[in-house]
Amino acid sequence: MDTNHKHTISMRVHNRPGVLSRVAQVFARRGFNIDSLVVSRGHHPDFSRMTIVCQGDPAALDQIVKQLRKLVDTTHATEYVPDESVERELALFKLKIVSETRTEVFQVIDVFKGRTVDISDSTVTVEVTGDSDKVDAFESLVNHFGIIEMVRSGKLIIARGAKRT
Amino acid sequence: MDTNHKHTISMRVHNRPGVLSRVAQVFARRGFNIDSLVVSRGHHPDFSRMTIVCQGDPAALDQIVKQLRKLVDTTHATEYVPDESVERELALFKLKIVSETRTEVFQVIDVFKGRTVDISDSTVTVEVTGDSDKVDAFESLVNHFGIIEMVRSGKLIIARGAKRT
Repeated sequence: MDTNHKHTISMRVHNRPGVLSRVAQVFARRGFNIDSLVVSRGHHPDFSRMTIVCQGDPAALDQIVKQLRKLVDTTHATEYVPDESVERELALFKLKIVSETRTEVFQVIDVFKGRTVDISDSTVTVEVTGDSDKVDAFESLVNHFGIIEMVRSGKLIIARGAKRT
Repeated sequence: MDTNHKHTISMRVHNRPGVLSRVAQVFARRGFNIDSLVVSRGHHPDFSRMTIVCQGDPAALDQIVKQLRKLVDTTHATEYVPDESVERELALFKLKIVSETRTEVFQVIDVFKGRTVDISDSTVTVEVTGDSDKVDAFESLVNHFGIIEMVRSGKLIIARGAKRT
């Protein structure tokens, strides 16, 4: 069994102190490491949306999803089905630039439809969005220029078509 | 004292099971509600970056930052200084479209440099990035068309210029 399989869980929870701690404990108790977690308010201010990417045994994950559903603050918890959803991630990269690589750096940014958000004599900070594979690909391509800093949002998902996630 | 002041904390932590739970508990114990939290790996795979937006009394926040620094997994925890940082957020909006509003919806998307990521007969899903105020402004402008669903990444921050966050 592939124990390193990546899973994405989408949740809707009541926006109350302590919710995140209870959710995180469900994963910690089973030794699941969370690759990324995004929690922020949804359109309705009383509820938050969480998107969690984690790795581990699929059978244990089923138990985790069941436990997440049992939490009093949870209104909805489900594993993400790739074909029925759009996946997006935001990343900010601060890259080193020297005169010899400047043109090449901006070409890569352009190909990835990156947006320059800040610039200094020796660095450029760029915003990239896309699915996680695209952000990974950008990271590998710019790695040899020198990544001074990188911060990623983790995965956000939304159902395709007219239906709700 | 303004107890509803918003604070943004940037952290760097060891990427281990249980870290998130311990961080969330620091906030929960003091009854601080977390508006948004983003955790995902940084450029170095052994460390994660967390960006946390919360509300509460500034004096209590100082205590929280001190406690966060004391956690064994924390390498860095600091409150964000707006002038020295770039702030970005990603949001996905699924909007209702009917023939009468279609042109207007796409005009608003265009003004905000939104990117259409999915479309159906009755809906359009759009990706918007910017600081939190810009995402809030987009939300208010499209609200009357009908927001079927919205998911936001929460705030990501990166230091301006050549220095590290």
